[in-house]
Amino acid sequence: MAEKLLPREKGFSEWYVDLVLKAKLADYSDVKGCMVIRPNGYALWENMQRILDKMFKDLGHKNAYFPLLIPESYLKKEAEHVEGFNPQLAVVTHAGGAKLEEPLVIRPTSETIINRSFAKWIQSYRDLPLLINQWANVMRWEMRTRLFLRTTEFLWQEGHTCHETEADAEKETLQMLEVYRTFAEDYMAMPVLPGRKSETERFAGALRTYSIEAMMQDKKALQAGTSHNLGQNFAKAFDTQFQGRDGKQHHVWQTSWGVSTRLIGGLIMTHSDDAGLVVPPRLAPTHVVLIPITGKASDAEKTQVLEKTHAVAADLRRAGLSVLVDDDDTKSPGFKYNEHEVVGTCLRVELGPKDLAKDSCVMVRRDVRQKEFVPLAQAVEKAKAMLDAMQADMFAKAKAFRDANTFEVNSYEELTKRSEDGFMLAHWCEKPACETKVKNDVAATTRCRPFNLKQEPGKCVVCGDASPGRIVFSKAY
Amino acid sequence: MAEKLLPREKGFSEWYVDLVLKAKLADYSDVKGCMVIRPNGYALWENMQRILDKMFKDLGHKNAYFPLLIPESYLKKEAEHVEGFNPQLAVVTHAGGAKLEEPLVIRPTSETIINRSFAKWIQSYRDLPLLINQWANVMRWEMRTRLFLRTTEFLWQEGHTCHETEADAEKETLQMLEVYRTFAEDYMAMPVLPGRKSETERFAGALRTYSIEAMMQDKKALQAGTSHNLGQNFAKAFDTQFQGRDGKQHHVWQTSWGVSTRLIGGLIMTHSDDAGLVVPPRLAPTHVVLIPITGKASDAEKTQVLEKTHAVAADLRRAGLSVLVDDDDTKSPGFKYNEHEVVGTCLRVELGPKDLAKDSCVMVRRDVRQKEFVPLAQAVEKAKAMLDAMQADMFAKAKAFRDANTFEVNSYEELTKRSEDGFMLAHWCEKPACETKVKNDVAATTRCRPFNLKQEPGKCVVCGDASPGRIVFSKAY
Ligand SMILES: [Zn+2]
Ligand SMILES: [Zn+2]
Repeated sequence: MAEKLLPREKGFSEWYVDLVLKAKLADYSDVKGCMVIRPNGYALWENMQRILDKMFKDLGHKNAYFPLLIPESYLKKEAEHVEGFNPQLAVVTHAGGAKLEEPLVIRPTSETIINRSFAKWIQSYRDLPLLINQWANVMRWEMRTRLFLRTTEFLWQEGHTCHETEADAEKETLQMLEVYRTFAEDYMAMPVLPGRKSETERFAGALRTYSIEAMMQDKKALQAGTSHNLGQNFAKAFDTQFQGRDGKQHHVWQTSWGVSTRLIGGLIMTHSDDAGLVVPPRLAPTHVVLIPITGKASDAEKTQVLEKTHAVAADLRRAGLSVLVDDDDTKSPGFKYNEHEVVGTCLRVELGPKDLAKDSCVMVRRDVRQKEFVPLAQAVEKAKAMLDAMQADMFAKAKAFRDANTFEVNSYEELTKRSEDGFMLAHWCEKPACETKVKNDVAATTRCRPFNLKQEPGKCVVCGDASPGRIVFSKAY
Repeated sequence: MAEKLLPREKGFSEWYVDLVLKAKLADYSDVKGCMVIRPNGYALWENMQRILDKMFKDLGHKNAYFPLLIPESYLKKEAEHVEGFNPQLAVVTHAGGAKLEEPLVIRPTSETIINRSFAKWIQSYRDLPLLINQWANVMRWEMRTRLFLRTTEFLWQEGHTCHETEADAEKETLQMLEVYRTFAEDYMAMPVLPGRKSETERFAGALRTYSIEAMMQDKKALQAGTSHNLGQNFAKAFDTQFQGRDGKQHHVWQTSWGVSTRLIGGLIMTHSDDAGLVVPPRLAPTHVVLIPITGKASDAEKTQVLEKTHAVAADLRRAGLSVLVDDDDTKSPGFKYNEHEVVGTCLRVELGPKDLAKDSCVMVRRDVRQKEFVPLAQAVEKAKAMLDAMQADMFAKAKAFRDANTFEVNSYEELTKRSEDGFMLAHWCEKPACETKVKNDVAATTRCRPFNLKQEPGKCVVCGDASPGRIVFSKAY
């Protein structure tokens, strides 16, 4: 029998890392902070990519690929931006056996190198909007890393768009945030708060940054995606201009937006349990595993069971599901149950001679882990219904948890006392000093000002100055 | 009207670069030897990826992702292998604001870092075969670069597999070469010779290297894919062992195989013409462009033509084709014809009031560029038939060209005289010295010993020593 996972109550972080390793999602490498994404983890990323890529393309975005290495001088062109990244850069100083004249940095993000191309490609308003996306690896040298959540190298997509007007850029910025919200909620079954980040938390070089914020099972926030209105900052630094409808030259208005393999960390911490990974069916690499129970069966019974198991598997595959049959004789059913719970197969189907005699089978949903006896004639229909229910229930459960742990705080004492309890909705005067105080005192930060939170004036819980409305304070990953 | 392409007869290399830039497939960057893959080029790569990825997965391979950076010491473990790459490495010496203790190289290929993981993951013969593929960027510092064909950074897939026996590894090596042959011929419409490379051309660290070799329109060879039987070289260097069925420890037997964005260069040089890109339908991002002809039409006619054009487009889309309607009023039909010929849209449909009066339209295949009048009622059926014919004809044409320019040479004089004429089938004694002489004298190299070339003994055309059979000599990219 495989070794049991550490339970969550013994330490959420330890449980997380143990699960990532035992479910074979990722592994450490000898390169500081760089992980190996194993097939089980990469299959989740492939599903995420496929769905997001279609959503982007349906809105007119096209994929392209820009160089990994960026001349150091490019990063210095947009001054605020480089300050944000300077301590995180990995630098190539030698290549082809010689020292380079100018060092090259491995992209921490691609605004600068992409603008160098955009400046060449864009001449007129007819070239706008220019809607580009890139799937790529990026690198940010991190001191403290954690598998998927914060790694030196990670995989992501970065959208980069150019528009004629500030309004068009703002519209795109919000549209892509909405794409991320839809993806997080409808596919990952992970409820999120879309909203605007504070000035302190804004992407260096952007006018405005928006994010979606999710709550993990330890009640900490995870920033799951960001969308930036870059204004004309990069356009001015790289002189990305177009001839407008008025015949004059203008700098383009830009956006950028991204999600990364960090989402896999969010997926795990939202849904998984002490038995292992739980994956919503719409993202699952394997929907169903069928396990024939033949331990005490006669040869004739065994043949019958195996035949029927494979027949049901074929029916399920024809219905569009991803299906495995685990008929390895050298492992016990219990061992297999455990294995498939660890890796998060959505639905388990057990089929033995007794079941067959009753023309039925046993189905067990990974999230609730309750046995249901299902007539074989209804196997396909029932499997599909159970997967649909699982998708909906997982979202509802996560949302109920998030809502139960979201509350108003109306004094600084309350804020400091309840900083471990979840999302705190508190009045804040918008001064960075008050954010810093909270951060220093209880390590909580402003997450975002949620769009759907009614804004009414009040008084900052930190300093008592006027506040335009409540914002979410929380500890965060 | 857009600027005309340079014709091939004015210089094949100049034509190639001009086409890549004008069809917006790729662009230069300021980083030496690194290109920007523009949306038109990246769409080709995405189609190649999708098809190959399915072929790999159907054979049981799974995708994973390994770190970009490799500790320098890893590369030194497999001595022959590091020698092959040493002058091509890009080296990160600084990161996170400090000098690294050990320099990290950007992967030129991932055998070493992957073996570090394999050694941890593999314990028993039950873990074999281990069939992994990675889609990634890699970097080899090149002195002379050319868009897609030879760039410092390129995109590729690298398969890495582990097996119990040498025979299993050889079987996998040849199976993946056959996958590449199928992809090249059935999808790219590019005939290739699969065969074994000479010792000189073998991948450093491999026991045996196989390749598929294509002929470009300038009669030069392009190595389009390679598959290596690595034997136990890396397994021994990284101590990748398993407990065998005999209870004893054994080193695994390994393979690696890859194709890259170089294939896009091969696609262009196989099929394209003086009007621009020609893409086989099975890889084309856009199958059909419909161009309404409304220049001299009345308003009523114009409305009718546009309605009908969009109706036909909808029918074609329902049939699974990728379809554009180019109804931009500010461009003339001639301008649009030219534009879509440059970017390689497979089929052009023209529809004007005169056509509509006859319930017909005009269809033009990109490769042969001949007008066909097609009744509107047969538009879908005819479009599909024309695309199928185009796919088949493109392969047949490329194959006829390759065969017409493949010939036997029986003396060194003949070999040196005809070195520009295509694939030379010549007897060779298998001594590297004879390959070197040919390379120095006429810049031709051995490409591969094709599997389908009957091997009969003879005398080396260079030195007169005994030869086991003919091999392909050719100039190559
Ligand atoms: Zn305040
Ligand atoms: Zn010889």
